Parts: sequence; structure tokens; C-alpha cells
Amino acid sequence: MSVSGGMTGARARAILHAYLVETWRRRGRTASSYSASTEPSKVRALIYGSHGDPAKVIQLKNLELTALEGSDVHVKMLAAPVNPADINMIQGNYGLLPKLPAVGGNEGVGQVVAVGSSVSGLKPGDWVILANAGLGTWRTEAVFREETLIRVPKDISLQSAATLSVNPCTAYRMLVDFEQLQPGDCVIQNGSNSGVGQAVIQIASALRLKTINVVRDRPDIQKLTDRLKDLGADYVLTEEQLRLPETKTILKDLPPPRLALNCVSGKSSTELLRHLAPGGTMVTYGGMAKQPVTASVSLLIFKDLKLRGFWLSQWKKNHSTDEFKELILTLCDLIHQGQLRAPTCSEVPLQDYQRALEASIRPFVSSKQILTM
Amino acid sequence: MSVSGGMTGARARAILHAYLVETWRRRGRTASSYSASTEPSKVRALIYGSHGDPAKVIQLKNLELTALEGSDVHVKMLAAPVNPADINMIQGNYGLLPKLPAVGGNEGVGQVVAVGSSVSGLKPGDWVILANAGLGTWRTEAVFREETLIRVPKDISLQSAATLSVNPCTAYRMLVDFEQLQPGDCVIQNGSNSGVGQAVIQIASALRLKTINVVRDRPDIQKLTDRLKDLGADYVLTEEQLRLPETKTILKDLPPPRLALNCVSGKSSTELLRHLAPGGTMVTYGGMAKQPVTASVSLLIFKDLKLRGFWLSQWKKNHSTDEFKELILTLCDLIHQGQLRAPTCSEVPLQDYQRALEASIRPFVSSKQILTM
Repeated sequence: MSVSGGMTGARARAILHAYLVETWRRRGRTASSYSASTEPSKVRALIYGSHGDPAKVIQLKNLELTALEGSDVHVKMLAAPVNPADINMIQGNYGLLPKLPAVGGNEGVGQVVAVGSSVSGLKPGDWVILANAGLGTWRTEAVFREETLIRVPKDISLQSAATLSVNPCTAYRMLVDFEQLQPGDCVIQNGSNSGVGQAVIQIASALRLKTINVVRDRPDIQKLTDRLKDLGADYVLTEEQLRLPETKTILKDLPPPRLALNCVSGKSSTELLRHLAPGGTMVTYGGMAKQPVTASVSLLIFKDLKLRGFWLSQWKKNHSTDEFKELILTLCDLIHQGQLRAPTCSEVPLQDYQRALEASIRPFVSSKQILTM
Repeated sequence: MSVSGGMTGARARAILHAYLVETWRRRGRTASSYSASTEPSKVRALIYGSHGDPAKVIQLKNLELTALEGSDVHVKMLAAPVNPADINMIQGNYGLLPKLPAVGGNEGVGQVVAVGSSVSGLKPGDWVILANAGLGTWRTEAVFREETLIRVPKDISLQSAATLSVNPCTAYRMLVDFEQLQPGDCVIQNGSNSGVGQAVIQIASALRLKTINVVRDRPDIQKLTDRLKDLGADYVLTEEQLRLPETKTILKDLPPPRLALNCVSGKSSTELLRHLAPGGTMVTYGGMAKQPVTASVSLLIFKDLKLRGFWLSQWKKNHSTDEFKELILTLCDLIHQGQLRAPTCSEVPLQDYQRALEASIRPFVSSKQILTM
């Protein structure tokens, strides 16, 4: 989720700071004890002390592992992806910014090593993912409070588990929360090769929705098209193809889409709006083009188009952890049924993080970078 | 409602054409009999045969009055305003365009002269307004079908009756249909001196909502400010004042607005979005600046702002005539209670229509042009 500007950054930062202070207070330690230790330790973490270019500000350091208290869980991290939102957070372009220094990463899967005396819902050996962003997953081990963890089944792939709590959740909520779609209805999206985009294709297919998937043109476009169609995409079009008048003919067998999902913005989102059915909704969840969303007045008034935004962190604030767990279970069911695969991943050992960071921002890299610990 | 472009024009035109053909069929006449008569007649009408500059395409002509059939009502028009939407419709920049030639005007009040044998709800002497746009009100007399007319009380002013069915209805629906506002909540709007703007101020005041009213700067700004405050405006600011950082201090006693009403678009709407509360809605109903609506990606994602449009014609398509009559009655109650006055009006005799058309598009003319027959 690359965004231009950050109107609510200060407020979100204040909220997160208050949360972290409370977490530290309850663990009986101060913020300063969170800084990197100079002593040798088995805990290694990717830490940034200031916002900026990830390649420059991220460093691999040793951290002390805090003592395990009653409701704490000691987790050995197994795998954690590099998501666009992680990069934006390090750059300082995100609606939620942690107090610095901070451990990078907001998503990942770990295995429980030990639990505190009052932990009842988890046991050593369990696989867990994180319920909230901002806790820092790019590290070998950590102590988290029980309520920040969600157990996931161990019979799904490590890559599926590591990439479950952000992109597929975003895709699912956007597909079901904005328009009351019925089987046979159609969804159009751009950035269709993104982590969210691939999840949208698969979840839409499971819900028997048709998808029109827009991607940037590239040398290996046929390979990408084949891969997305293999996931369940009905149509794959380049941005340029979407602008051609004859595309209307290509899409004539589909009902006009009632939902558009936009992670690009700028001209690409203007084009999505042009294809939406009257009364339809465009949900923006990213701004890769670093341009705003623009809608003509007549599209708003006479075509009654609705422009909305989606941010999973906000959804989680507005819903209980049980509702989030329910969502995770729903997605695990889809994985079990073979209807939701992890995106194409490249596993990179934690110490080679520079390679993963570089690949995560290089254009047309179709695989998600996964740090393995 | 000045708009750039007209995406749904063709479709709307087709719908209206079908409607007119059906009307003509039921009245037993053909479209050609609708053209201006060369014979002297007592019915005078402002007619346009092609889209373009109203000053050039509108002509005062004689029309035949059709015979009164069973469910028809013969109406002597009393007064009809010149609204921005009427001008856009003549220019061809509107979501609903009549088959040409057409009589101008979409709103007005008339008095029933005679009724057909099967008319039960109206009698000679009643005041009536039109339930639908596109029927042509800039004429001395007309025969309308009973179901296109709504009786209004005769104890309201002629100007109130003539300007009741478009702007106050738009204002009311926008205030109640998009956000669940409570007394004490705040609304921000631009173009606050427009017909809709003045109705918003008064209806909001009746609903005990606070209003921040943005207007263009002008030589007599204090006079305008005083007039809008007299209507119930809490704050009146120029576009320039709204951009100043100190304005936040001026507005500090108000809760941040949860609803923004936009008839300008372009930069002005960007500024409204900046002042909206998180989760708030901006409703666009016009584009006087002839620029699109632009929203930064972070306002959509992190501030969860919602961008919608409103068009009364669409609302009427989605609701029954009884619901529209209910709305008219609600507004008549407000008029009776002294809470809703007609906008400042300049009455212009029908034959001086060029003066009214010219004044209706001249900048900073604060009074609504009303044609009197």
C-alpha cells in the first residue's frame, strides 16, 4: 500500500505510541530497554532507527529477549514477508508509524517455544500469526502477549501462513463489505499481480464472481496472464488494453462490474471508474502511481459512483479479535479446499535482507519476498 | 449543477425519449405536433431546437394547447425559476436531455384551470408543482397528466412554491440520507450562496446542525455573510479563508464536520475533504469550477473518507411519487414554521427572458431569476 502523503500519520503514531508504552509498562520495562543490545544474543532483528530508504536505515542487530511473564508467549519466527506497507512504514509514508527504533515487518508466522503461566489458548509447537500490525516480525524470536497472537493450522504451507493475515484478509473484506455481490457478478481490479490482487482473483473465484484483472504491460505478459488465469482470473488486460474502445467488445459477455478495487490510483483508477456499472463502488487500498484518485463530477452525480477506501488496520480497530479470528478461519478453509494459494514467493534468509528489500521495490518482480529465520 | 462531460447522457436521453413518446402516444398526438405553431395562440413558451448557448438557442414561440383528456390537467403557469441545471440541460451538459425541440425549465408553480373527467385529486384553483424534470415549465400554459403534478398549499409565497421542488429537496436529502447526523453535528459546504446552499443553511438550522459555509470572495462579502447568517449560517468563510491555517482555530468550537456538500469541485472540494472528520462523507451535486473531484489516496485509506454524488432525478427514480410528496409536505411544514424561506429572487416577465438567462449565468448574482407568466 504505497500512499502519497499521510494526513493521519501523527494521530496514528500517537495511538501506536500509547499502545507500545502500555505494552512496555505491563511488561515492566522501559522503551529504552527495547534498543539493540551490544551483548551477543541469539535474537537477531531487522531494526530501523529513523524513517528513510529501507536499504539505508534497516540494520540487522542483536536484541535481548525479554523475560516471559504470565500472559506472554515466546515465539520463534519462521517466515515473514516484505509487504509494500512494510516499506511505506519504514519510509514514514503510512497511516500508522511505530515509535523508533522499531523492528520491521508486520506479518509472519512463528512457532510457540514457551508460554507464560496464565496462557491457556496456546501451547509449545503451535503455529501463530500476529493479530495486529506494528509489532515487528523481521526477527528470529520474540515475546508477544497471548492476545496479539492467533493460532493457525499446521497443515497449511509455511508461505500460506506467513502471508495470510494482511493481503488475503484485505481482499476478502473488500469483496464482501462494500457491495452485495451475487454469484455471476463482476469485479474489476488493477495491480492484479500484487499480493492482494492474487488473493482477490482466488477468493472471487471461490465466491463465483467474475474478475477483470488489469496489470502493467511487461515483457513476459503472456506468462503473467497464464499464471493469473491459472489462479482463476476470467480476463487479464494491460492498462493500455483497458483504454482501447474494442475492450468493451471483449468484455461484453460480462455484466458491468459493480465493484472496482484500486491499488494504483492516478489514471489507472480513472479508467476503472469508466468501466464501473452505475451505482458501483471503487475501493482504494493503495496508490502505487503516487497520484491521487480523480473522478469527474458527472460520474459522481449522474452515474452515482461511490469512492471509498479500505485499510485493514482500521477494520481491525472497528471489529473484535474474535471477528478477525473468524476471518482467518474462513481463509484457512479456502486454503484447505485448494481455493487459496500463497502468492508466488522467493524465500530469502534473514541475513540476506538487503536482497529481499531491493527485490520488493524493483518493478515487475512478481514474487513476494519472504524472510526465513 | 454545472457538470463537465455527460457520461450517461445518451442513456438518459433514450429513457426520456421513450417516456415522451409514451406520453405523446397516450395523448393521441405525434412528436411533430409538439413543434411551434405558426398560428396565433395564447400559449407562449421558451423553446430550444438545438443544444447550445441559451441566449442563442432559446426562443419565445407560440404553442398549441393540446386537448384535455380524461387524466389531464390544464395548468396556467404562474412562476418558474431559471436553475443552473436548466442552463446545463439547454447546453447539453446534463445527465438527462429531452428530445428536441423542447420547452425549457424543469421547475415552477402553476394554477389548475381545468381537469379531465377522471382526475380526482386536483380541482380548478389548486396550486401545483411538477413531480418530474424534463416537462418544460417556461410557458404560460400547459396540459400535464395528473400524476406528474403535486398540489401545494396556497398559503406559502409564490416564490417559495416556484422554487420548492428542486433545491430544497436536494438540500434535505443530502442532509439526511448520507450520514446519521445528530443535533450539534456539523456540515461544511461550498457554493453556500446557491439555491441549494441557502436551503442547506436553513434546513440544517431547523435540524439543529451547525454549518460552515464557504463562498467565493467578492466586493460585497460582508453583505453576503450577513444575509447567510440571517438565514442561520454559523460560519461563513471565503475559499481563501478556508485555506488559512488559522481557520482551524476559528472553527475549534465546532466538532469536525462529518458531511461535506460540494457543488464546486476542483480545488474547493479538495479543501472540503481536508476539513472532514475521519469516516466522513463528501456529497458532490455540482461542478461549478468545471474541474473533477480529486482525493489523495491517504484521505481515502487512512482517513476513510467517502465520496458520493447526489442527483435528485435519480433519487426520484429510486423512490415512489408518494415519498416525493411526503418530502414536499415536510418542506412545506418548514416554510409554515418560518424555517425555510425562498432564496432571494428577481422576478422577470416571460417576454424578458433574455435578461433572466443572462443574469442566471453572470458571476456573483445572488438572486434567483424567476420567470413570471
